[in-house]
Amino acid sequence: MLALAAAPLGCRVVVVEKQADCPAAGVSAEVLAGDWNDPAILLNLAARVDVVTLENEFVNTAALEALEAAGHRLYPAVVTMRQVQDKLVQKQTLQAAGLAVAEFAAVESPEALREVGRKLGWPLVLKARRNGYDGKGNYTLRSEGEIEAAWTALGGGRNSLYAEAFCPYVRELAVMITRGRDGAVAEYPVVETVQREHICHIVRVPAELPVAVARRAAEMAHRAMEAFNGVGSFGVEMFLLADGRVFINEMAPRVHNSGHYTIEACDCSQFENHVRAVLGWPLGSTALRRPGAAMVNLLGAGPGNGWPAGWQPALTVRGAHVHVYGKAASSKGRKMGHVTALGDSAGAAEALARQAAEGLQFGGRTEG
Amino acid sequence: MLALAAAPLGCRVVVVEKQADCPAAGVSAEVLAGDWNDPAILLNLAARVDVVTLENEFVNTAALEALEAAGHRLYPAVVTMRQVQDKLVQKQTLQAAGLAVAEFAAVESPEALREVGRKLGWPLVLKARRNGYDGKGNYTLRSEGEIEAAWTALGGGRNSLYAEAFCPYVRELAVMITRGRDGAVAEYPVVETVQREHICHIVRVPAELPVAVARRAAEMAHRAMEAFNGVGSFGVEMFLLADGRVFINEMAPRVHNSGHYTIEACDCSQFENHVRAVLGWPLGSTALRRPGAAMVNLLGAGPGNGWPAGWQPALTVRGAHVHVYGKAASSKGRKMGHVTALGDSAGAAEALARQAAEGLQFGGRTEG
Repeated sequence: MLALAAAPLGCRVVVVEKQADCPAAGVSAEVLAGDWNDPAILLNLAARVDVVTLENEFVNTAALEALEAAGHRLYPAVVTMRQVQDKLVQKQTLQAAGLAVAEFAAVESPEALREVGRKLGWPLVLKARRNGYDGKGNYTLRSEGEIEAAWTALGGGRNSLYAEAFCPYVRELAVMITRGRDGAVAEYPVVETVQREHICHIVRVPAELPVAVARRAAEMAHRAMEAFNGVGSFGVEMFLLADGRVFINEMAPRVHNSGHYTIEACDCSQFENHVRAVLGWPLGSTALRRPGAAMVNLLGAGPGNGWPAGWQPALTVRGAHVHVYGKAASSKGRKMGHVTALGDSAGAAEALARQAAEGLQFGGRTEG
Repeated sequence: MLALAAAPLGCRVVVVEKQADCPAAGVSAEVLAGDWNDPAILLNLAARVDVVTLENEFVNTAALEALEAAGHRLYPAVVTMRQVQDKLVQKQTLQAAGLAVAEFAAVESPEALREVGRKLGWPLVLKARRNGYDGKGNYTLRSEGEIEAAWTALGGGRNSLYAEAFCPYVRELAVMITRGRDGAVAEYPVVETVQREHICHIVRVPAELPVAVARRAAEMAHRAMEAFNGVGSFGVEMFLLADGRVFINEMAPRVHNSGHYTIEACDCSQFENHVRAVLGWPLGSTALRRPGAAMVNLLGAGPGNGWPAGWQPALTVRGAHVHVYGKAASSKGRKMGHVTALGDSAGAAEALARQAAEGLQFGGRTEG
């Protein structure tokens, strides 16, 4: 989706991916197949382009450092990626910037976890400091009795862990925000995200919120971007509490699933604004073209290829936009595509998006 | 732009182009470099894809026949391309369908042209039956005295020519229309096109017209598509006369410059609908997302590369979408990109599009 946004701006895109036959190969000028943690491949990439960017936060900062050391332009910068990749450091950075986050503490041993539990109370969430996503690397403990199981499940000892107080949120919110090399910022509307089994299922645009809460969430996203000196489009995931407080849950230092709706719904998408930001160009308008929008993720139902059953009926839903990522294989829960719809309200859009999405199925059955 | 629309639909695009390093190479899976009139290359292409389509009406029908003969799917079909490529046959087809066109006649010699002039009056437009576009292959004669010059200029004798009565139009209109393999049709709004030196300069969406005239134009486009049994997105260029009559000027059997605005302005663009049509999928909604839109072409000012001066200021115009085609070189009058803007009216959108376009310049100066 980044490459598709870059093309109309006259950009030539070169991609580093594990497989040469990746989805991006169909929409980019060149693919360098290999390991994105290999500095040699990154240097090869950098030699062919004006600027390097990331759409995956799990690239080794050691490898990225080789780019900056050789004088290449990388956005977001290594310093930003370091602060974001380690979720404990991320939380510390947010807290130091005065932004509300759930209470947290590093835990070096099961004993330390017991201690933290006594202090923060139960339930408690144990998290891997690195490489977690979509609920992977998280374990929610209801009591002291689960410490052993949680510690083992997350590979405590081998992996660095930390613990967070369980946040009794009533809704999950997200703000896509783009920050330019010059510090200019463009914020998208605050959206509501609905998760299913820890994976983003639906995004409602805009979130139905008191104006003051929406304004606070947007301001927090803005301050978070400055705290990390972020450049590009970032997703800021938040929790809304019953009393109206907003906590930042996590920063995604890249274009984000909660912003896919911007392709059709906004003047300038998260992808186009990311391209503009990392190239040092002026940011585009984040205004909504219609009052409401919604996005529904299309997840694999089971093993199969990348093509869904129920394709033609989905295309007949007026105002729904079906995106299929062209991945080679489906598996249960894998993100295979999404549907966005626009409407006079988030609710009207959601009804259209659901209608198109409900008949689509990737893998898991043999029909279609 | 076709490849960019096909990607989100999960399509893998293979392109035949003269140069491997063409703009489409950056957004497609594969480029087969060579002559699109070479049946061997077309057969190679067809062997790799489910369906072959054209975005250029000048491919030899003899070469295209090889595809159909080998059982490959080609849309539009050879029979359609034959009827459209020869503009005399095109006019005859339109006339036979009862559609209003300017009076015309084949001319085999300067003497025959003199005869036609006596019958249809002066001025008279002499046209090449094949390979004309953007005013190339046309010559307007004000009197009998220009017959020799016109005949020579268009290569009469070598090239087949025909003549048309000069149409005293007050405005030029166009309708983009998509027709599916099943005959279903999706029409876009009637637009006004403003030409400058025979090249499309501005498109205003929708055209300011009495409802009855707009309805008639749309109906004519629909009937024209059926007359040619067209499949895919076609541009139908029309003349509006002072008395409200509408004449069809020309059919473009492909996605068309007068429909570029649909990328941002419509639910489903001319490009996406073309892909849907040739794949036999349901067509998408042509509804406008905002009440008005406008497109301004970016033409080369002179020799230079494919990158414009004035880039950054153009990006600051809120609601304007700048498209740069990534062509290797600019030349005077060459289409290098376009700007689309949306607004509460065609006029408001045009002001934005012009504002973004006016500072952009491809070639012709050394600054930027």
